[in-house]
Amino acid sequence: MTSTLITNIGELVTNDPALGDGSFLGIVHDAALVIEGEQVAWVGVASKAPPTDAREDVGGRAVVPGFVDSHTHLVFAGERSVEFAARMAGERYTGGGIMTTVAATRAASDTALRAHSSRLATEMLASGTTTIEIKSGYGLNVPDERRLLEIAREFTPETTFLGAHVVPPEYASDRDGYIDLVCGEMLEACAPFARWIDVFCDTGAFTAEETRRILRAGVTAGLAPRLHGNQLEHGPGARLAVEFDAASVDHCTYLSDADIEVLAASDTVATLLPAADFSTRSPYPDARRLIDAGVTVALATDCNPGSSFVTSMPLCIALAVREMRMTSAEALYAATAGGAAALRRDDIGRAAPGARADLVLLDAPTFVHLAYRPASPIVARSWKGGNVRG
Amino acid sequence: MTSTLITNIGELVTNDPALGDGSFLGIVHDAALVIEGEQVAWVGVASKAPPTDAREDVGGRAVVPGFVDSHTHLVFAGERSVEFAARMAGERYTGGGIMTTVAATRAASDTALRAHSSRLATEMLASGTTTIEIKSGYGLNVPDERRLLEIAREFTPETTFLGAHVVPPEYASDRDGYIDLVCGEMLEACAPFARWIDVFCDTGAFTAEETRRILRAGVTAGLAPRLHGNQLEHGPGARLAVEFDAASVDHCTYLSDADIEVLAASDTVATLLPAADFSTRSPYPDARRLIDAGVTVALATDCNPGSSFVTSMPLCIALAVREMRMTSAEALYAATAGGAAALRRDDIGRAAPGARADLVLLDAPTFVHLAYRPASPIVARSWKGGNVRG
Repeated sequence: MTSTLITNIGELVTNDPALGDGSFLGIVHDAALVIEGEQVAWVGVASKAPPTDAREDVGGRAVVPGFVDSHTHLVFAGERSVEFAARMAGERYTGGGIMTTVAATRAASDTALRAHSSRLATEMLASGTTTIEIKSGYGLNVPDERRLLEIAREFTPETTFLGAHVVPPEYASDRDGYIDLVCGEMLEACAPFARWIDVFCDTGAFTAEETRRILRAGVTAGLAPRLHGNQLEHGPGARLAVEFDAASVDHCTYLSDADIEVLAASDTVATLLPAADFSTRSPYPDARRLIDAGVTVALATDCNPGSSFVTSMPLCIALAVREMRMTSAEALYAATAGGAAALRRDDIGRAAPGARADLVLLDAPTFVHLAYRPASPIVARSWKGGNVRG
Repeated sequence: MTSTLITNIGELVTNDPALGDGSFLGIVHDAALVIEGEQVAWVGVASKAPPTDAREDVGGRAVVPGFVDSHTHLVFAGERSVEFAARMAGERYTGGGIMTTVAATRAASDTALRAHSSRLATEMLASGTTTIEIKSGYGLNVPDERRLLEIAREFTPETTFLGAHVVPPEYASDRDGYIDLVCGEMLEACAPFARWIDVFCDTGAFTAEETRRILRAGVTAGLAPRLHGNQLEHGPGARLAVEFDAASVDHCTYLSDADIEVLAASDTVATLLPAADFSTRSPYPDARRLIDAGVTVALATDCNPGSSFVTSMPLCIALAVREMRMTSAEALYAATAGGAAALRRDDIGRAAPGARADLVLLDAPTFVHLAYRPASPIVARSWKGGNVRG
């Protein structure tokens, strides 16, 4: 196994407090890092680096853990810029919403879906994202939900069955019939290609009782739970997530004090999606209240063609700092270690011995530039499993 | 002179209402465009294109005029991420502000300044900006102001003498002495390298009377006026700009009804800098009020290391749509034709016969994606004076 020394790292963020300056980011200055195969083998000050087969000098720039985007809807067809423009102009839009994407996705060939997803995954890697989660939810019938997950599996092991995204119009007069399908034949077809089960538990989507039923079926089929919740108004999402020991509850714009207390005492992460709030001109969640209460926060893009056609984690970090008053350090942690926690992974989201060598080299002296230089091309390169990418 | 046909343009934005669909963007669908030397020679529907020497098919994607960034402070040294982080955390920051950059810039070699400016100009071109304005203002003494403008001139003919950026500490007890210098020896040294004269006319910067004196001296030296004004509070900036027939008054966050009436009746453009408002967590100007009153609006980055370390015009467009309620069409027009008006140029900011072939190819079916896909890499390529760049 070849070992490579990455050296002259002006600022290395490890996310391991034991390794660095004592802060939760575990920063090492004038650092070096050894990649051995797919893993990080050593981290420390450059002057103490061990001998290696190869050596690369990164010129004093910053290195951070690869971003973990724990909430995307990456496999879809079509676009909804007309709906976006109408929404931004404050006009009433009577188009199809999610069903527009469902129709386009059902009609698309595997080849077209794969090519489009690949383009977006490439954008993500180029902007520093080394792990993505991908949900189904634009099929909403047995063959298409299964097809989306099969394609998603080609891009990531973190695939999520979201048959319970919305009730499709075919079942408008038979909600229970659709939920039966989701919990029965659809789940059976999808489970082999999914790690997670997700439900959109919110006003206009699925109720608490429906959500419980679907999550129970998913867990029985061997899937681990996660939830969309508390996006549109106060509701049971966060508490249900904790009740099921879900890895994450995502959106979290409307949370009561009780919700936050329950989350803080749990292993459930609150995943915030500021690019969706940006693109829908919605209020941002109160990240400070969550962090100050001790809740683990993750940032994710929510990449989808309706509410957040965004692939850039650096934009999410900039929005978290500008709009949600997270510090740059909290935002970076949420985009890396937070995302890893939201996927219950301890092999990613940190740059420490034993972790996967998923890393980002910034064309900047410090990670603060991720928020200080919004939309600038400061991601110089990513390593994924030790291989240079992007 | 070689002629090249760019064809299979799904959506061509010309900014010439006579050419297209009747809207102010002058959109032509299924379009083609002929580049001859440095200029656009022909525009129309692809099926009617004339014969040319060469031909390129852009696959149904959108083409828009190159962005005109009419307000930047591109030539500087150093960075101020610590100040940014403190400001975002709501902490009182007692560092040097602009003077930090002045000190770093004065200390930097020509070679270092040129390399740093070149990197930023390259970022801008890669994000679709084909014309930039560059201000001095980080020298604040005769040799350094002149040096910054000489370097700026290497990047653009649109150079602006901004000796009146702030009063440097050396002159803290002698404001009039500094203004004498700006209007005398400094102006004389700088005028050969500048097209424009600018003053930061705002609370804590220069007063109305000081601004008048400096602009008069600049005009006498053959420079054309433009102003920073109405950024921090209500003030005389916009009215002074009109009084001097300035090409533009920039920032415009605090405008009275009278200011807007005066602007609407003038040839002075209101240049809005939303990336600065983003990066300083400041209120955004009321673009709707300006546009609805008939004021010509431009968008620019204000690229500088203190308040807006941003090179991306697409980010400014996205912010204009999200935060200032401009339509995507208004925002694109402001970033192209608006910027051209703010520089009193009619050869740029449009894709029509006779204009410079400054164009942007988007990896998107429509310009709406500039706001719909914030921070995504949708600028496929720029042409500057007919040459492929970026």
